[in-house]
Amino acid sequence: MDFKEYIRVIPDFPQPGISFKDITTLLKDGEMYRKAIDEMKQMVSDLKIDVIAGPEARGFVVGAPLAYALGVGFAPIRKSGKLPGETIELGYDLEYGKDKLAMHSDAIEKGQNVLIADDLLATGGTIATSVSLVEQLGGNVVGAAFLIELEELKGRNKLIDINVYSLMKY
Amino acid sequence: MDFKEYIRVIPDFPQPGISFKDITTLLKDGEMYRKAIDEMKQMVSDLKIDVIAGPEARGFVVGAPLAYALGVGFAPIRKSGKLPGETIELGYDLEYGKDKLAMHSDAIEKGQNVLIADDLLATGGTIATSVSLVEQLGGNVVGAAFLIELEELKGRNKLIDINVYSLMKY
Repeated sequence: MDFKEYIRVIPDFPQPGISFKDITTLLKDGEMYRKAIDEMKQMVSDLKIDVIAGPEARGFVVGAPLAYALGVGFAPIRKSGKLPGETIELGYDLEYGKDKLAMHSDAIEKGQNVLIADDLLATGGTIATSVSLVEQLGGNVVGAAFLIELEELKGRNKLIDINVYSLMKY
Repeated sequence: MDFKEYIRVIPDFPQPGISFKDITTLLKDGEMYRKAIDEMKQMVSDLKIDVIAGPEARGFVVGAPLAYALGVGFAPIRKSGKLPGETIELGYDLEYGKDKLAMHSDAIEKGQNVLIADDLLATGGTIATSVSLVEQLGGNVVGAAFLIELEELKGRNKLIDINVYSLMKY
């Protein structure tokens, strides 16, 4: 199944020099979207997963249906100020400037096995921060699953000791 | 099934006087999250749906698994500047100030039947704007489905001639 045929590459977005991998052309095809989620489910079938955690907003369109397909919970990872309850937050560096990610303090129960899910593994900054948040809550990160991995950016190197799964590699 | 038991009500968020309905306590329970999506699927089973459109970010945690469950496509509705391809945009009024929502110009094919999905129907501003975007793209809005409807805010009145489905009413 060549999922890449359903990914649209948009040059110079969000800034010059970046070839953005647009997943919306995959999402809008109901059959292919479902197949992509089913194949991700298959990839992680050896893991014992209690909860999927995914960063907003594109992580939700991967993590939420994957949680549904697996019958496990979903814990949103959001930008600072978006979650209504008590949160923990962690800053991380962007190419320009900094940002913060947050999770509800009760999003994960101690000892739960957590799969991180997102659309894209690039430099791995968002995902490494997500892993740290889950671990701070006492969760056990059993893997990280992506629709797309940009191999040359070596995001895997930031995810030591974590099983990394990607449906498409560029 | 009393899904309301899984909704956490948080007073004075995001501003004084608002009782925020926090769905994350439902999402993190895998069994209840799946049951909620399955019940929404059942509610819309009489509709012929080609694509689900949902506004970011909480609309994604409802719309994306519902699209997966129905085997239909998903079209994200995003804040201005987030979608990489050619978009159409529409402004709408917030309680304080204005905001803009956008969809990819090719997100919907002319004549496709579209279900709008979101976590919450409140005053209906976001949803009415979403309906307008879908209709501008030539889509036929066959319904709008929500986890939660805040009845006293009368959001339904902004959605004339549209079937409105909600799993929980407050």
